[in-house]
Amino acid sequence: MPKVVDHDKQKEKVAEAAWRVIRKLGLDQASVRNIADEAGLSVGSMRHYFTTHSELLSYAMKRVSDRVRERIAGITFSGDLLKDIPLLVDEILPTNEEKRHEMEVWFAFVVKSMSDSTLAQHRCEIDDDLRMLFINIMNGLAASGLALPDLDTALEIERFYALIDGLAIHAILRPEVVTTDMMRKTVIRHLLTLCRPQSGI
Amino acid sequence: MPKVVDHDKQKEKVAEAAWRVIRKLGLDQASVRNIADEAGLSVGSMRHYFTTHSELLSYAMKRVSDRVRERIAGITFSGDLLKDIPLLVDEILPTNEEKRHEMEVWFAFVVKSMSDSTLAQHRCEIDDDLRMLFINIMNGLAASGLALPDLDTALEIERFYALIDGLAIHAILRPEVVTTDMMRKTVIRHLLTLCRPQSGI
Repeated sequence: MPKVVDHDKQKEKVAEAAWRVIRKLGLDQASVRNIADEAGLSVGSMRHYFTTHSELLSYAMKRVSDRVRERIAGITFSGDLLKDIPLLVDEILPTNEEKRHEMEVWFAFVVKSMSDSTLAQHRCEIDDDLRMLFINIMNGLAASGLALPDLDTALEIERFYALIDGLAIHAILRPEVVTTDMMRKTVIRHLLTLCRPQSGI
Repeated sequence: MPKVVDHDKQKEKVAEAAWRVIRKLGLDQASVRNIADEAGLSVGSMRHYFTTHSELLSYAMKRVSDRVRERIAGITFSGDLLKDIPLLVDEILPTNEEKRHEMEVWFAFVVKSMSDSTLAQHRCEIDDDLRMLFINIMNGLAASGLALPDLDTALEIERFYALIDGLAIHAILRPEVVTTDMMRKTVIRHLLTLCRPQSGI
């Protein structure tokens, strides 16, 4: 009987091997050969999953953001925005080892995308998705009547999103300074500055 | 008569050549040979300025933050913190082409420092310097009586600093979304959320 291989599972396995190579050796060392070795596959068999090296890297990049989306989709929201928004943001921030590793890989892709137009295109799509989360947060706060009146919504979307990306990179680079506890407190504090004074968490 | 060469000027020239190579080809291509070619120097003459490749890269990284410090030192402050703080922060943010280029190089170094302990050491020192700017900002706001009472100072230092780094990376990656005008408005808005309601800019 032939071995049954789940195609998507194997692609995921290759993406995870790519992440480990990127974290250990850097993105420029993430060759098909190095990734195949890390995944325990032959270079030849990689062709079943990816036609080109660029396609492999694009997939590995996209899987980082898929993971965030899957985690967010798995949250059981309470309906109380002041509790739910911190839960949602927590899935973007590197608040545990798995998410720290993802974030390290993500930043490597981000820097590489500055000089790689294919990765840049994917990065913009992922950025649009992430920005949409913050658009939804601000719209949710406004619709529920929690938001301060007269907020400049476009500006507040960027202020919240930029804060989260800044916290994420600081937490990766200086985990002893920017702890998980500090990230979470900062998110709650920021959220409260967007809300009417009587709002409580 | 021997040609008089200003040693520091030549080192600066090499650092600038390193930045151009990093922006064009990525940090992994910033070999001594490629940097010498870009600087119009022979590989042999590079030894006059740097003993090792690592020393060259560390210098090129440090020069990015020196530039920020030099620009800040050149500001004529008014004494009005609500005007002076945006001026100061403007020298960190990529609000013109020169600073955009610096920031691109800086992020390349930051990612490289995740797997290079020498660069990581320098990066931490530079991070401490930058964090000190935000410590001084928060202390200045408190001492002048502008700051809201009962702020969690450690948290607000990180919140401001993370916001600025997040804005900087977003402006590099999505200049059409995060414009210079939006960065500046966001800084002023953030500053005002730290201050008593009667404070005006």
